[in-house]
Amino acid sequence: MKRTVYLDNERTTIVAKEVIEAMLPYMNEYYGHPASLHMLGQQAYEAIEQSAETIAETINAKPDEIVFTSCGTEANDFAIRGVAYANRSRGNHIITTKIEHPSIMRITEELAKQGFKIDYLEVDKEGFINVEQLENLLTDETILVSVMHVNHEIGTIEPIKEVGKLLRERKQKIYFHVDAQSSYTKIPIDVQDFNIDLLTLSSHKIHGPKGVGALYIRQGTKIEPILKGYISVQRLRPGTENVPGIVGFAKAAEIAFANFEKYVSHMRNLRDKLIKGIEDNIPEVLLHGPRGDKRSPSNVNFSFKYIEGESITLHLNMYGICVSTGSACASRKLEPSHVLTAIGVPPEIAHGSIMFSLSRYNTEEEINYVLDVLPKVIEKLRSISPLTPESLKKSGG
Amino acid sequence: MKRTVYLDNERTTIVAKEVIEAMLPYMNEYYGHPASLHMLGQQAYEAIEQSAETIAETINAKPDEIVFTSCGTEANDFAIRGVAYANRSRGNHIITTKIEHPSIMRITEELAKQGFKIDYLEVDKEGFINVEQLENLLTDETILVSVMHVNHEIGTIEPIKEVGKLLRERKQKIYFHVDAQSSYTKIPIDVQDFNIDLLTLSSHKIHGPKGVGALYIRQGTKIEPILKGYISVQRLRPGTENVPGIVGFAKAAEIAFANFEKYVSHMRNLRDKLIKGIEDNIPEVLLHGPRGDKRSPSNVNFSFKYIEGESITLHLNMYGICVSTGSACASRKLEPSHVLTAIGVPPEIAHGSIMFSLSRYNTEEEINYVLDVLPKVIEKLRSISPLTPESLKKSGG
Repeated sequence: MKRTVYLDNERTTIVAKEVIEAMLPYMNEYYGHPASLHMLGQQAYEAIEQSAETIAETINAKPDEIVFTSCGTEANDFAIRGVAYANRSRGNHIITTKIEHPSIMRITEELAKQGFKIDYLEVDKEGFINVEQLENLLTDETILVSVMHVNHEIGTIEPIKEVGKLLRERKQKIYFHVDAQSSYTKIPIDVQDFNIDLLTLSSHKIHGPKGVGALYIRQGTKIEPILKGYISVQRLRPGTENVPGIVGFAKAAEIAFANFEKYVSHMRNLRDKLIKGIEDNIPEVLLHGPRGDKRSPSNVNFSFKYIEGESITLHLNMYGICVSTGSACASRKLEPSHVLTAIGVPPEIAHGSIMFSLSRYNTEEEINYVLDVLPKVIEKLRSISPLTPESLKKSGG
Repeated sequence: MKRTVYLDNERTTIVAKEVIEAMLPYMNEYYGHPASLHMLGQQAYEAIEQSAETIAETINAKPDEIVFTSCGTEANDFAIRGVAYANRSRGNHIITTKIEHPSIMRITEELAKQGFKIDYLEVDKEGFINVEQLENLLTDETILVSVMHVNHEIGTIEPIKEVGKLLRERKQKIYFHVDAQSSYTKIPIDVQDFNIDLLTLSSHKIHGPKGVGALYIRQGTKIEPILKGYISVQRLRPGTENVPGIVGFAKAAEIAFANFEKYVSHMRNLRDKLIKGIEDNIPEVLLHGPRGDKRSPSNVNFSFKYIEGESITLHLNMYGICVSTGSACASRKLEPSHVLTAIGVPPEIAHGSIMFSLSRYNTEEEINYVLDVLPKVIEKLRSISPLTPESLKKSGG
């Protein structure tokens, strides 16, 4: 059997064995409906409460400030539209960034159609927002600021704490939403210290199951549900709770935080080894995003000039190496990444970008394998590319 | 260990072993994101397509008419609000029934606030709607009719085919939505034959996992998504797909339909044995809903006069018997069931109702156990009830 080296962990992750083991009893033993009064219902209800407690603790929140959703996208939608609709009487101005995940971009585009005024913060060449620009954009009509914690493509860690501090000092209440799907379990988050009102989390990016996300909602936040229907045992989110999924999500968080430093430094070492290996062994490459402590420990993103990211992906796949091109969620669409465009990468270089995203399960040996295979693949693809300086010279001459 | 007799299958069911086995590889082996181009992504993508094909076949639909959601409640919301918003320019009139699941009722109440005109069909003493009343209510403004297939509390099988026929004969297009959460895998559904445009299905009610539902949307239906955000590989429903959940849902449907007649007649036999046993052995009981072929094979619902459903639930729980009171989704709220109210049951009798809902896993021996325990529980509770005619006489005299 062909080996598999999975470096697409920004998209989704393998479910940890311990997580599956934690979920199974809630499928075939404590499988009751959490709203039922009998023992099987009670066990399901308590499992949700216990899971909320576990998740809350990891971000310094209270259990009843956690609402479980079906995914991070739903949590983002809930946060943004939920706050926008509930606070419309106070103002219609929302500020976000040019490099948010598409699940935020599609929502703010929708709100713009409905009459909300959306400002998108610029970012510099490494993807950092400018807090001064944010300050200058704030008006009396501003009701919400949404800034991602870590960029999903280029690993930039945004100055969330500074944004929180700025908003805390304003006289009027401006809600602060942070999409932490790419940072959770990799970079510490403290909703009190950072002054965050709403925080989006996703299970399947931290070795938990797909089909579960969570929204932290600070007590007292004015927000309305975006899904209508009967309420089971959670507030604000209708529908029968995905009990095994919620239990699995909490277990995944528990494992990650029990070994936080160990896992993070492991990923950071692999990240730096991969960056160095690529830069040392492959000519004409361009690292996107910052280096060192300002970069997510799990993110590596390079453009390989003169060739297409899709070709690299498919060739690496033949060696069992799983990676993604540019925009983590748009690669079936072959659009140039809006993140790379925002940091000023020209389209022809953006198209050659590959994201290698790490997890705690990756090994040094796997990185060595990638560093063995990748230069050959790049060389081969460049040898048949019509876009290299040599090819262009030939076809021109 | 105490035995467990689970008779709360209308609420949620145990996940079948074969379903768990089918899900596991999508958690720890083919765990890729369905939008990723590499092999693990491709396998996830194909699993979704295959699952849609399996589900579509069971209702005589096409695979691309199936959209997976996070639960039945979301599917109901998607169907009702999605069609209402997308067709508002044609009219604002919606017709549904007085006995829909709360997940429909909350949505139509919300739409009423937004200016839609909602008519609620009356039902007779057994819970049947009157198709003539429906016909009389139709206007040029009517855009949607939503009628449940089987009532979740009293098991009434509504005349869906007649409704579909009526709507098919109208000149203007009136969309027909059917909530089939309580009938799917128990009563045959043919969306062509019944002329259904939108059909809600739920996984966790058919021995599939929680956290997955589906909406059948007939090709050409004008509908808009209710969740905003980036689209992964499904149309109209954003967010990373719950791949293992979807695979499990399809497996659950496959198993149920492979043995449809066998499972259904098994449940029907247990149902009739339980009804007869209760009526023969316990005085002053009242069966809610119809008898025989017009009743769901898995539903039994009785009121036990002079005592409260909650007390019965808790006492049966001590014997390991899991049941629910009246309204399948409101029993933590202790409101009288809106379904029982609609069929004319007085509040004091509605409060004493207990729903016994069966699955293929229940056995005759379990029913014998219930028929052994239940009369004692009822007798004991009545002996301490202040509401029996005897107690009332005493306290009065």
